[in-house]
Amino acid sequence: MTIYVDNAATTKLSETALNAMLPLMTEHYGNPSSLHHIGQKAKELLEDSRERIANILGASPSEIYFTSGGSEADNQAILSAAYAGAQKGKKHIISSKFEHHAVLHTLDKLKLEGFEITLLDVYKEGIVRLEDVANAIRDDTALVTIMTANNEVGTIQPIAEIGKLCREKGVLFHTDAVQAVGHIPVNVKDFNCDFLSVSAHKFHGPKGVGVLYARKGTILKSLINGGAQERNKRAGTEYTYGAVGMAAALGEAVNNLDKNAKYVASLRDKIIDGVSDIERSFVNGDLTERLPGTVNMCFEGIEGESLLLLLDQDGICASSGSACTSGSLDPSHVLLSMGVPVAVAHGSLRISLSEYNTEEEVEIIISSIHKVVKYLRSISPVWEKIMKGEEIE
Amino acid sequence: MTIYVDNAATTKLSETALNAMLPLMTEHYGNPSSLHHIGQKAKELLEDSRERIANILGASPSEIYFTSGGSEADNQAILSAAYAGAQKGKKHIISSKFEHHAVLHTLDKLKLEGFEITLLDVYKEGIVRLEDVANAIRDDTALVTIMTANNEVGTIQPIAEIGKLCREKGVLFHTDAVQAVGHIPVNVKDFNCDFLSVSAHKFHGPKGVGVLYARKGTILKSLINGGAQERNKRAGTEYTYGAVGMAAALGEAVNNLDKNAKYVASLRDKIIDGVSDIERSFVNGDLTERLPGTVNMCFEGIEGESLLLLLDQDGICASSGSACTSGSLDPSHVLLSMGVPVAVAHGSLRISLSEYNTEEEVEIIISSIHKVVKYLRSISPVWEKIMKGEEIE
Repeated sequence: MTIYVDNAATTKLSETALNAMLPLMTEHYGNPSSLHHIGQKAKELLEDSRERIANILGASPSEIYFTSGGSEADNQAILSAAYAGAQKGKKHIISSKFEHHAVLHTLDKLKLEGFEITLLDVYKEGIVRLEDVANAIRDDTALVTIMTANNEVGTIQPIAEIGKLCREKGVLFHTDAVQAVGHIPVNVKDFNCDFLSVSAHKFHGPKGVGVLYARKGTILKSLINGGAQERNKRAGTEYTYGAVGMAAALGEAVNNLDKNAKYVASLRDKIIDGVSDIERSFVNGDLTERLPGTVNMCFEGIEGESLLLLLDQDGICASSGSACTSGSLDPSHVLLSMGVPVAVAHGSLRISLSEYNTEEEVEIIISSIHKVVKYLRSISPVWEKIMKGEEIE
Repeated sequence: MTIYVDNAATTKLSETALNAMLPLMTEHYGNPSSLHHIGQKAKELLEDSRERIANILGASPSEIYFTSGGSEADNQAILSAAYAGAQKGKKHIISSKFEHHAVLHTLDKLKLEGFEITLLDVYKEGIVRLEDVANAIRDDTALVTIMTANNEVGTIQPIAEIGKLCREKGVLFHTDAVQAVGHIPVNVKDFNCDFLSVSAHKFHGPKGVGVLYARKGTILKSLINGGAQERNKRAGTEYTYGAVGMAAALGEAVNNLDKNAKYVASLRDKIIDGVSDIERSFVNGDLTERLPGTVNMCFEGIEGESLLLLLDQDGICASSGSACTSGSLDPSHVLLSMGVPVAVAHGSLRISLSEYNTEEEVEIIISSIHKVVKYLRSISPVWEKIMKGEEIE
């Protein structure tokens, strides 16, 4: 038995998306740049996908650029805005402490190139405060980049308000909406954003494809130079079935968004309730402003990795935080930014649900967490110390 | 009826590759960075693909980086080598006039950053001369980048010799092997190269995936910053089915390489023979040092675009050159670099065959070319001038 609750890391491809992709993998295999009918058919399907995605996001098709995923979109948006700013002598960028590494590491690179980076606090709630953004904006601010929803704790940021503020101040605004699109309403006009990043495999779409929305009039810099694909902004033969699968999955997700969100949130709340009797455990981040499917909990006195491995033995696939940083022994930068002590942050568990999960699975998860936490604490010297009231490092 | 002879633009996904991909699209959908069994299974399949590709190319798995395709691989290799060179005060790069735009446009970018670029002649044969490389290498040369086989005319370059020379001179060497891998023997040790770019969809593998080989000890710079994927050199959740499909297609291509090459070359030669009676037509590039499947011909007095459209009406999918530059009205930079006059270069036709083509198809192609060229010349004022012996612009 497998219970997959790691949907913030990646999702299972939907049948709708797979069925949309297969004809391009077998029959319509042309290169969209080719003049002949096989190429033109591929182009037609690619452009149809662009249009469908644009409509869903409130954009026009010419503002949608296909990329290899969310990370590439983040890199391209941030570098484009930064270098456009630098041309005008603006070399200050505002972001938050708990962005995805695709954002933070791009900012690290820019810092080495002489940009000044302000990373805003996210507080215990895991939410950036609008007044902090307002206070941080300077005359030389080129860009504000704040994620729509955090990938580890699921908290939702006041994006529309931040976007409005940036627009008023004449500062470019990018949001990494990788965790949000397909799960909560996302509209570039409501968000007042100039750039927005999307990844298909977070909403039951294919891996290896994403979208960068770049508002008309913004200056987009190529990360990958070469052919004239994507209106000269992203070279390389198009991953046509990726684009088509993405459009299909997004359409499906958005058509069922309210229903899925309600259902998934009910499962999430059942888990939170179900483990609430475990002593010295707590949910990380604001309890209301959050994605329907993501919950991040800490259990004092245990190691997240052991917790995951034992849950996995019960068939439960969960995460301690971001899949992108697993393999690292460092505690989550997200939890630390929210003030969670290092020792406690080590015992984190992220459960990220999708509409494919069932009530029965949730019962098994709750029962397994109880069992595993109890066992790990029984062999934990740290837990022994906590019980004796000793200080923990 | 469709006769697809545009395999240098892209190929049909092989059944072997599709069948290798499907289990990852349906069952093994995990994120390879996840600790649980679904993630670890995906990781195992990804690493198995890396190892298989490494073995075929004569590399070790730790020298193989998955990318979104050949263009990304070209960009990353060239920028990495250039910036590593610049650190040592070396800002000179040698390439050829008829490289793919993924190489040439990356060099354009570097030129703006103060690098000096030497583009070598390729002559009428479409082949870079070893002595020209030797003469161009300077003390401040950071990189030589020469493609293994040209994408428009199919001519094969003396890569092993150029690589040997570069190794002796202590200059980094990159080769864009996108058109060669899976079609002729490619081995990084034989090639003496430091970087080599591969694209899966050129040998019946999936779109959206490629490989950059970077020799142990070279310094690779990330194009896409973020998570720790690909040993910290290429962020973004892995396109697992792309990698697996690529390995499957490459295995299949290499296992049948000799047989396919012989068969495809026989079809190619049949076409060359079959149209050789068309007056004022000729094959571009050296007749022996070429890929088995690619032939590029010019027919004086006609426009390549019209030729393609009429062939397409007969179901024949061919190209005038690179798919990456279609939509552009400029004549091929490849043909111009080989000394083909502008007016003649406009009438080019690239036929790129694969083992999926048949003798029957070749007969139809020959007959259709005769018919279409005759018709287009009958309505061509340029052809009329040529017949009168007038000067052509």
